[in-house]
Amino acid sequence: MHFKVRAAAKEDCKEISRMIMELAVYENMADQVKTSHEDLKRDGFSPNPFYECLIAEVPDEHKTKDGHCLAGRSTCGHVSVSGQRQPGYTVVGYALYFYTYSTWKGRSVYMEDLYVMPDFRGKGIGTGLMAKVAQVGVEKQCVRLQLSVLEWNKPSLDFYIAKGAEDLTAKEGWHFLRFHGQTLDTLAKEAPKD
Amino acid sequence: MHFKVRAAAKEDCKEISRMIMELAVYENMADQVKTSHEDLKRDGFSPNPFYECLIAEVPDEHKTKDGHCLAGRSTCGHVSVSGQRQPGYTVVGYALYFYTYSTWKGRSVYMEDLYVMPDFRGKGIGTGLMAKVAQVGVEKQCVRLQLSVLEWNKPSLDFYIAKGAEDLTAKEGWHFLRFHGQTLDTLAKEAPKD
Repeated sequence: MHFKVRAAAKEDCKEISRMIMELAVYENMADQVKTSHEDLKRDGFSPNPFYECLIAEVPDEHKTKDGHCLAGRSTCGHVSVSGQRQPGYTVVGYALYFYTYSTWKGRSVYMEDLYVMPDFRGKGIGTGLMAKVAQVGVEKQCVRLQLSVLEWNKPSLDFYIAKGAEDLTAKEGWHFLRFHGQTLDTLAKEAPKD
Repeated sequence: MHFKVRAAAKEDCKEISRMIMELAVYENMADQVKTSHEDLKRDGFSPNPFYECLIAEVPDEHKTKDGHCLAGRSTCGHVSVSGQRQPGYTVVGYALYFYTYSTWKGRSVYMEDLYVMPDFRGKGIGTGLMAKVAQVGVEKQCVRLQLSVLEWNKPSLDFYIAKGAEDLTAKEGWHFLRFHGQTLDTLAKEAPKD
């Protein structure tokens, strides 16, 4: 299936927000999503953005009339809310990433989310998104592309390993730690006075 | 011991670079350090910096004449290369961090390195640096402070856990993955054409 990958624009935040929720629903964690599309706009599309995002799109002919997307369908067009046919492409996946830094190796890129809508999987779109993140990173002189995967998510782990990723938790014993909520506030209050 | 924590300036990069190397030597990984103080200057002190850094300093009276630092010494002053006594403070630790993003929770801060010179440990300087990172993060509306620790580094793991960090690798099974070198280049070349 033909698809294209492009940098997300501010106007895509509603679609990104919808897919973030789809992914969370799939993981039975919908109640954990606290970000709105307004947050995504503010945090990704201002000076010194906190993240960058890529969008995967397929031609409109893969959409149904009500806007849901079905792969392998014949051309059926898309009727928008205004009733006008929208030419072009429809969003079916995203990769959200940001830049990190290694004091030993320098610039790195970290892929926080990679999502392709279920009907569009197995068509190379996930690989396309991830490869584009790698390309963007390499162009910015990043020497690493990093990400985290839950152990039970064997299909994803296998996918990344097959693509050449090293599992540093298994190999070197890296543990990922987090302060949040009360522990974060308590810690912040221990900061020495200026 | 009195110490202060402040934001690093461009001029601190040589000192930061020295401490990055000290930490790597301690870990028998000195050959892994590829960043120079020039890289640190470029990557941390330009528009859209890749990292931010805090510096911990103690009063000059804790330094020896040749510039090495010894805790608990009486006042001895410091003779610089130019032979002039340098008033003020001497750098004994750093915390290097950057901002990350959770699609569920929003802004986060990630602490890549936390280092205090051996003679100055056990005096609250490490906690002071980390707490300041937490404070800077909270001020920027970050809801998480995250970091990674090697499993064998039990003292550090215990330190963070004691401060309230959750070990998400132990608790939820997060694995940390990396593409680098040839696998990164290969992946980047798979990116779809624009």
